[in-house]
Amino acid sequence: MIIDCHGHYTTAPKALEALRNRQIAGIKDPAQAPKVAELKISDDELRESIEANQLRLMRERGCDLTIFSPRASFMAHHIGDFAISSAWASICNELCHRVSKLFPDNFIGAAMLPQSPGVDPKTCIPELDRCIRDYGFVAINLNPDPSGGHWTSPPLTDRCWYPIYEKMVEWDIPAMVHVSTSCNACFHTTGAHYINADTTAVMQFIQGDLFKDFPSLRFVVPHGGGAAPYHWGRYRGLAQELKKPLLTEQLLKNVFFDTCVYHQPGVDLLTKVIPVDNILFASEMIGAVRGIDPETGFNYDDAKRYIEASTQLSADEKHAIYEGNARRVYPRLDAALKAQRR
Amino acid sequence: MIIDCHGHYTTAPKALEALRNRQIAGIKDPAQAPKVAELKISDDELRESIEANQLRLMRERGCDLTIFSPRASFMAHHIGDFAISSAWASICNELCHRVSKLFPDNFIGAAMLPQSPGVDPKTCIPELDRCIRDYGFVAINLNPDPSGGHWTSPPLTDRCWYPIYEKMVEWDIPAMVHVSTSCNACFHTTGAHYINADTTAVMQFIQGDLFKDFPSLRFVVPHGGGAAPYHWGRYRGLAQELKKPLLTEQLLKNVFFDTCVYHQPGVDLLTKVIPVDNILFASEMIGAVRGIDPETGFNYDDAKRYIEASTQLSADEKHAIYEGNARRVYPRLDAALKAQRR
Repeated sequence: MIIDCHGHYTTAPKALEALRNRQIAGIKDPAQAPKVAELKISDDELRESIEANQLRLMRERGCDLTIFSPRASFMAHHIGDFAISSAWASICNELCHRVSKLFPDNFIGAAMLPQSPGVDPKTCIPELDRCIRDYGFVAINLNPDPSGGHWTSPPLTDRCWYPIYEKMVEWDIPAMVHVSTSCNACFHTTGAHYINADTTAVMQFIQGDLFKDFPSLRFVVPHGGGAAPYHWGRYRGLAQELKKPLLTEQLLKNVFFDTCVYHQPGVDLLTKVIPVDNILFASEMIGAVRGIDPETGFNYDDAKRYIEASTQLSADEKHAIYEGNARRVYPRLDAALKAQRR
Repeated sequence: MIIDCHGHYTTAPKALEALRNRQIAGIKDPAQAPKVAELKISDDELRESIEANQLRLMRERGCDLTIFSPRASFMAHHIGDFAISSAWASICNELCHRVSKLFPDNFIGAAMLPQSPGVDPKTCIPELDRCIRDYGFVAINLNPDPSGGHWTSPPLTDRCWYPIYEKMVEWDIPAMVHVSTSCNACFHTTGAHYINADTTAVMQFIQGDLFKDFPSLRFVVPHGGGAAPYHWGRYRGLAQELKKPLLTEQLLKNVFFDTCVYHQPGVDLLTKVIPVDNILFASEMIGAVRGIDPETGFNYDDAKRYIEASTQLSADEKHAIYEGNARRVYPRLDAALKAQRR
């Protein structure tokens, strides 16, 4: 079984974007603000948006199940206030839930949170609880920079985040560290901000003592862990300078990297440097890099090909990356699969 | 001959730091502000600080010449105003110049600029000119984020930077893209901010059209190009999405990566993915990662070992990385070496 732990609903029907645009317009002009009930998207529209896109590619590429969350770049937590983020998160999470009900064999949800810059993260807990309890979601996406490229929140090791972590422990769910759109002109959203956020989070976890307080807390750092595996010697050396334990102790009991690295040498480095138990299969399909690589003739984000082509990984190791690790890191996913006799 | 294109004067005599501390105190209390002439560092002190440190390690490791610039984390362009940065840059550059005069076979200078957040970059030109003309420096370090982790300046492709680029073309010098200390708690200076800045700069160059305006402009992106080589498929794919030429055209005629990647798999990825002509030997020694790697028994930043151990590189390719490329990217270095009959 092949589990893609990192998929976003990037192909939602256009009505969603139209509603969001009216919501944004409503920040300045409340007369334009839509009511949530005005969003009408039929099951057929949802089915079509998925069958023609993610599900088609999953079938073509041989992926069974995607952990599916709202479109990351559209979370845009920097827009409006908590009420705006709250309404938006609720809508987006519900759509992912509906997709998971329409395609229970192929999709299971992960929640976006109604984060808002400067607002206490604990305000996100009701939506988090709702998504896990009522929707059967198995994870959350946590944005370390709700400001969208200005990095005005404290590091992820700061105590202000602890209420979220307590809930993660209580529900036994991991968080994927995932920023949203950059509104800082310095940072291209998917080419700089995403990767920088991954690198930044890894270094915050190395610097801090978060996992002393939460020994069972688990984070997935997407996009292959940002720059961290490529600079693994630097990170080992910096941990040493900071008098921290080895990264196998300080980091890798709690932090996992996905395989969203879109070329063979990158995936080979990842699987060479990072223990197999810390690598989760993912493609972030359909996402930032949709084209066909002229050097291979295949889509850049057809991540399974790189795992398949690896000469470093045994069959057991590939199985761990494809399925075993995900069942361990996402216990509620494992439970849901077992309930389906999978 | 082995040229290290990335060394900082991290071991300057303590009198320098003491002066800087008084300069910073003088921002609030002008009575404490020192006169530049109060800084007394003898040639013997300079010699000792170099011979016991950088030069000792260069000899031990087999490096002939270091392109030497002021300590990057101490540039701290965010402190004070242009006058503060200007006095500080002038002092630091002069010390590097004195080192290069004391050890003309082993060190040649690269300038820090008196950047200051929100101040027009063209104000840096007198110091730039002075360092190239009077000190024989062969390059500059350009900080894309003088705010120190708040990223308040426009991208490097913005026209506000063009006066610097015109000077770089006129003098035929490259710039190393190098940030300084992070004063944003999210970003560890050497573990996140440095690497993020490298990644960010690469993506800015991919997004922009800077090299259409300056076909001969050259940048060295340090720390192995940040995350870029590891995510080379992503960057090729993003360039494709942006309808840009192939990265070999769009980026690699003007942008070079150093070898400050502190483990063998990272260096192997770099040399596999990036054309050899775009790779410059560097160690950033003595810098962020000073310890001994328990996995190898050698210093993390003994970068030459990774090049030597590479099974991918021919002798000619190693020569290009060690010397040939640096002579091409830094023509004034080549001229200085030829004047020394090297």
